[in-house]
Amino acid sequence: MDHVSAEAGDYPTTERSRVRRRHDRGSHGRSDVYAVLDATPLCHVGYTINGAPYVTPTLHWREGDRVYWHGSAASRFLRASDAMPVCLTCSIMDGYVLARSAFNHSINYRSAMVFGTARTVEEPEEKAAALKYFTDSFFPGRWDDLRPMTTQELKATSVLWMDIEEATAKVRDAPPGDPEEAHVPVWAGVLPVRHGLAAAEPAPDLPESIALPAALDALIRSGRLR
Amino acid sequence: MDHVSAEAGDYPTTERSRVRRRHDRGSHGRSDVYAVLDATPLCHVGYTINGAPYVTPTLHWREGDRVYWHGSAASRFLRASDAMPVCLTCSIMDGYVLARSAFNHSINYRSAMVFGTARTVEEPEEKAAALKYFTDSFFPGRWDDLRPMTTQELKATSVLWMDIEEATAKVRDAPPGDPEEAHVPVWAGVLPVRHGLAAAEPAPDLPESIALPAALDALIRSGRLR
Repeated sequence: MDHVSAEAGDYPTTERSRVRRRHDRGSHGRSDVYAVLDATPLCHVGYTINGAPYVTPTLHWREGDRVYWHGSAASRFLRASDAMPVCLTCSIMDGYVLARSAFNHSINYRSAMVFGTARTVEEPEEKAAALKYFTDSFFPGRWDDLRPMTTQELKATSVLWMDIEEATAKVRDAPPGDPEEAHVPVWAGVLPVRHGLAAAEPAPDLPESIALPAALDALIRSGRLR
Repeated sequence: MDHVSAEAGDYPTTERSRVRRRHDRGSHGRSDVYAVLDATPLCHVGYTINGAPYVTPTLHWREGDRVYWHGSAASRFLRASDAMPVCLTCSIMDGYVLARSAFNHSINYRSAMVFGTARTVEEPEEKAAALKYFTDSFFPGRWDDLRPMTTQELKATSVLWMDIEEATAKVRDAPPGDPEEAHVPVWAGVLPVRHGLAAAEPAPDLPESIALPAALDALIRSGRLR
């Protein structure tokens, strides 16, 4: 799509997105932000309505500097305001970090916080194109195997997007940071967290003649979530 | 603690928390909300500053109707306002749901969205008690094995809390919801997502004489994240 501009380089550093704590873990680099957004299907979208915050989980996908998300549960937000400021956050917990002191306990994680202005995809054709991209980015080739979407279904589906104006990525991936306390006689280390797909569960009414597509089998075996 | 009142029953239904979509999946029941909050260590906290939304990932814990969270990265928020409205959301993705139509694709998930007013724990003793509860709720008995927290460390740690004023839990746990389309010749079913702990990784400087505590070994084997 012509809006895609997968530029290299950093997002601007402003009062909103400046990394205030643990500078060593923070980055405004595009590739760092993209890596987190692309690693997890689930995001949390924050809106403000009448001054109060709302945080909604949903699925997202990305094309260059544009992030899309599924409008599920967004109807109240869409009614409240058009073109509203949004903070979309993705987080993956990679492990518990157990140190010798409570203070140095931490987690290993990857997170990205991106800021922009929410828009809705209005044109049915553009919406269909976005949903095809969405579906195929999770499950390669699936869109063309599905029965086509009806006009009514397209109307009932909300797709939102924003261009990333500012963003921060943070990563911690290390053992406990307290080597000076190695003499304290308590177990220290990392309990890694794994997120992965398990064996597919065919729908109860799926004909036995329909096998799991190779692309889905490959996704399950990949160890990735998307 | 004396503020704990693990009452049964429902949270009030208001304009803020009313389930607008998919009523079949939503609940205001305390036990439903608690079940999600207690199943995952990671939450996303939404704040509003100068009218704009911020969504921060952090760890949380719960005692009755009170939710605590770790103040990491909260300093900017704490500076901005005291007693601010907060939306704290926990979400667990349990699987991709692949239907015969794009429209009926979904995910299986558990989520809870809780609303309240953020407060900070000010008293050092109260803060230490909260952190002990936090640590031991993840890793039973660990607090007493650690070297004690210093006054300086306590000062540098932020603990926030809120009493749940309103809350909504949503769960989807089912095969694709399109039995009338079972004749469409495409694979349909669920790709379950699993989140679990893997084998512990001792700190590089951990003396070999210190074995993994039984409580941590049990947690890893439990299949739970907390």
